[in-house]
Amino acid sequence: MFPRNSWYVAAMSHELVDGGVLARTVCNLPLALFRKSDGTLGVVIDQCPHRLYPLSKGTVVDDGLRCGYHGLVFGTDGICREIPSQTEIPARACVRSFPVREAHGLVWIWPGDAALAQSAPLPAFDTGPGYQAGLDFTCLEPSATWGVAGPHHIAINANYMLAVDNLLDLTHTAFVHAATFDNAGVLDSERTIKALGDRQLVDFFGFKNSMSAPLRTGYMLDDAVPLFDNYLETYWYAPGIMILVHGAVAQGGDRETDGAIVLNTNIITPATETSCHYFWAQSVYRNRGEGKVRDLWDVMTRAAFAEDEETLRNQQANLEAFGSASLDDDVALVLKADKAIVLARRIVSRLTKLEA
Amino acid sequence: MFPRNSWYVAAMSHELVDGGVLARTVCNLPLALFRKSDGTLGVVIDQCPHRLYPLSKGTVVDDGLRCGYHGLVFGTDGICREIPSQTEIPARACVRSFPVREAHGLVWIWPGDAALAQSAPLPAFDTGPGYQAGLDFTCLEPSATWGVAGPHHIAINANYMLAVDNLLDLTHTAFVHAATFDNAGVLDSERTIKALGDRQLVDFFGFKNSMSAPLRTGYMLDDAVPLFDNYLETYWYAPGIMILVHGAVAQGGDRETDGAIVLNTNIITPATETSCHYFWAQSVYRNRGEGKVRDLWDVMTRAAFAEDEETLRNQQANLEAFGSASLDDDVALVLKADKAIVLARRIVSRLTKLEA
Amino acid sequence: MFPRNSWYVAAMSHELVDGGVLARTVCNLPLALFRKSDGTLGVVIDQCPHRLYPLSKGTVVDDGLRCGYHGLVFGTDGICREIPSQTEIPARACVRSFPVREAHGLVWIWPGDAALAQSAPLPAFDTGPGYQAGLDFTCLEPSATWGVAGPHHIAINANYMLAVDNLLDLTHTAFVHAATFDNAGVLDSERTIKALGDRQLVDFFGFKNSMSAPLRTGYMLDDAVPLFDNYLETYWYAPGIMILVHGAVAQGGDRETDGAIVLNTNIITPATETSCHYFWAQSVYRNRGEGKVRDLWDVMTRAAFAEDEETLRNQQANLEAFGSASLDDDVALVLKADKAIVLARRIVSRLTKLEA
Ligand code: FES
Ligand code: FES
Ligand code: FES
Repeated sequence: MFPRNSWYVAAMSHELVDGGVLARTVCNLPLALFRKSDGTLGVVIDQCPHRLYPLSKGTVVDDGLRCGYHGLVFGTDGICREIPSQTEIPARACVRSFPVREAHGLVWIWPGDAALAQSAPLPAFDTGPGYQAGLDFTCLEPSATWGVAGPHHIAINANYMLAVDNLLDLTHTAFVHAATFDNAGVLDSERTIKALGDRQLVDFFGFKNSMSAPLRTGYMLDDAVPLFDNYLETYWYAPGIMILVHGAVAQGGDRETDGAIVLNTNIITPATETSCHYFWAQSVYRNRGEGKVRDLWDVMTRAAFAEDEETLRNQQANLEAFGSASLDDDVALVLKADKAIVLARRIVSRLTKLEA
Repeated sequence: MFPRNSWYVAAMSHELVDGGVLARTVCNLPLALFRKSDGTLGVVIDQCPHRLYPLSKGTVVDDGLRCGYHGLVFGTDGICREIPSQTEIPARACVRSFPVREAHGLVWIWPGDAALAQSAPLPAFDTGPGYQAGLDFTCLEPSATWGVAGPHHIAINANYMLAVDNLLDLTHTAFVHAATFDNAGVLDSERTIKALGDRQLVDFFGFKNSMSAPLRTGYMLDDAVPLFDNYLETYWYAPGIMILVHGAVAQGGDRETDGAIVLNTNIITPATETSCHYFWAQSVYRNRGEGKVRDLWDVMTRAAFAEDEETLRNQQANLEAFGSASLDDDVALVLKADKAIVLARRIVSRLTKLEA
Repeated sequence: MFPRNSWYVAAMSHELVDGGVLARTVCNLPLALFRKSDGTLGVVIDQCPHRLYPLSKGTVVDDGLRCGYHGLVFGTDGICREIPSQTEIPARACVRSFPVREAHGLVWIWPGDAALAQSAPLPAFDTGPGYQAGLDFTCLEPSATWGVAGPHHIAINANYMLAVDNLLDLTHTAFVHAATFDNAGVLDSERTIKALGDRQLVDFFGFKNSMSAPLRTGYMLDDAVPLFDNYLETYWYAPGIMILVHGAVAQGGDRETDGAIVLNTNIITPATETSCHYFWAQSVYRNRGEGKVRDLWDVMTRAAFAEDEETLRNQQANLEAFGSASLDDDVALVLKADKAIVLARRIVSRLTKLEA
């Protein structure tokens, strides 16, 4: 169960070179993504209507995607352009195609009702002044303002909401990421969770004046600095998009000019009920440290996300060992730290039910 | 679903040396095939009636097949000959055995009602003069008349009818075998399909005067020859036997004496619903070129059948990805090139329903 | 289906060092076993009540087992001791724990109704004078009386009753272990089977005066000795515990002082319906031959149990190939040699039904 009337990231632009074809499953739909030599993208169900061969095994030609079995060609609209063994093209010679858009280096597709896609804008958070301007995903584009590492793709063998849960309750960083972030401070932070509109949450973490060595290094905060201002704000957009904004500056300094500010974009797309795609990037405001902060966070987060991947895989496997495919929204033991999870799951359930 | 009252090739003779045992699944029946030291063949259900151990893990003794767990011995008739730990042999100490015949280097078994097997002849096509005399499978036996490569065995992870479809619509050779046969000529050939009796089809392909370089080489047709006579006739016998007769001769030449004539025997036997056995051989009439034509076609076809294996595996996996185990006979988009497939599947469905 | 109100061996003591955690499935229950630094053992369901993470991926702390995801700590009683992100501990913050005892180097757990465990003694056979004193499992503890090899653990992909059957019908040794024990004598032995109480069987084997070379070597019986007294007694305790007592002495010699006497302990614990744990050891009375007999039997039995493992795996796979998960108690062909199997399965069925 997933909300299907939503834009989902199915791929990163660089995965689809001109003439490239990619098989990818999104919301339980096996899809063939392809890019024509003119740069146009097509997304169709990965099943030829002739003998049901996977179209993703085909090749791109001028007119579209040619099936690898008997050579039928389908345009980006899914309509058959050519049947090599005969001249007439029957009306039923077509395959379902999906709305697709490309923005900020990402390929977004709409797996639901295509009629609703046209008027639906791509997801984006409200932006503000300074570093907040990057919240509309422009932070993913390398520029004078943003030093960017990524995007990267991780295949995770877990229901996508487990990965969303993971990001919505960062108390796990004290345990899962003890070896990387070592961030016990998150356990006794003061959290303020706000809903924005009908499918967004923001979670502000207030920290006591303490920070782990890896974080200090990441923010280029001198060991001698006794007092500092550090912050973490997480922005969630249903069902699977999150930007974590975090940073630190020595007390009395100016966030914008002196501190290190990192936007960590996380985009989680359901593959099947028990697997998901995880796209992520690190964007460093004003590329602080001339790439040094960006590279430190890229390396540290890559290690941390490998820990998350293992955690989520263990969790999913354990759900299956006990006979269920996914974690119920109303699991028995709900802690205070789960508040954002509870709110988010309620929103996703509502979106899913609306489509039922 | 398969017609079971039919002779199927379960193995090649050379797979069963004297004293040899072979596990093989045919029509969803796990079987143990064995050959006694006197050359006699036995085929029994691969399950000892005692503690249900696989008999194919046993050893051949003078009286039959000895179970590897507690040593019971079963004859080729499936009746128990010996129980090492006691003297009496209870009546129920027997295992289902199957009619078996050996001909032309192949082991044929009858997985259905044994009472019907005795009067049922082994499959064979009508023969004619010259090279057509080989259509009764004598072309599989090396002789002055036939240069033979094979038989070979390929295990294919696809429903057997997908493999039959593949052979019944050779337009796929233009795409699947572009790198091997490169035979685009098949796309605009004139085809004449005839039913013979109630379980055979013949498909004659009329070609325009064009031929790919690999085929020319295979037929030993000089590049300088501008006009030629080439032909392809395919003989199908329900459910899974096909001989493809093909060849070429320079215009004005004599097929029998100057041209290269190849009989490609293909025998497809269902294993499970999602896998099959593929036995194939190349027979070259009068061993044209003293083995050269035979070897060229053996090598080229081996490469092409690896392409088919991959294609069929992809197709089967895609059916399963979309939730079905096999391709329905009434798939939505039927092309003109599918005419033989439609006729053949109708015949096989009728044979299967007759047994239901 | 297994009787759950029984003590089962879940692990060997040496598998759980101080601070160690072990994942093990017993009677279809995925469990986390752990040992605190004070040596105390805990056994809990391998699923954190918070977000259902496997507790076996956690770490042992002073108070118990800490979950690896968000750090909750559970005591050996399954009650939560600590929630790092909050101070109150809700009542439902607990996980099912299981009675556990440790004896003779083995960890015994009670997967059924915990209320019944307290008054239930650990399994043990009646002991007698001399070597029979070891039948209460004290033979597993190395001492002046016992030379011990093991215990060892084998994971077997077969229903546990198939492994029990295997031990209850030793006629298989003539075939499965032809290369190791070569013990055809078992085929025409005279067997006397007696039930003791409501969950024990004893099976006495009377042999003719013959013995294979490997057994002779194992018992240190000189090749020149023409006549000897050899014996085999098997003690079974429902559902999966067996001690095989066997030995030999030259005719006229004294069993206690001159002969080699071996107690082979076998403890079979259900994992899932299609897999089990096999714990085994060799105990040699008075450590005959100063460790030589012990080592000979350890090596020979290790090889033989690899043969059993393969046999049981083949048998289980064949049951599944034919569509069933386990062997019915009323399999069609029952031989005389199956008498103990029939009696034992009747007892286990009764125990299982009692709990239904
Ligand atoms: S299956 Fe695609 S063209 Fe035939
Ligand atoms: S299982 Fe075949 S002889 Fe016992
Ligand atoms: S899942 Fe165990 S502490 Fe959260």
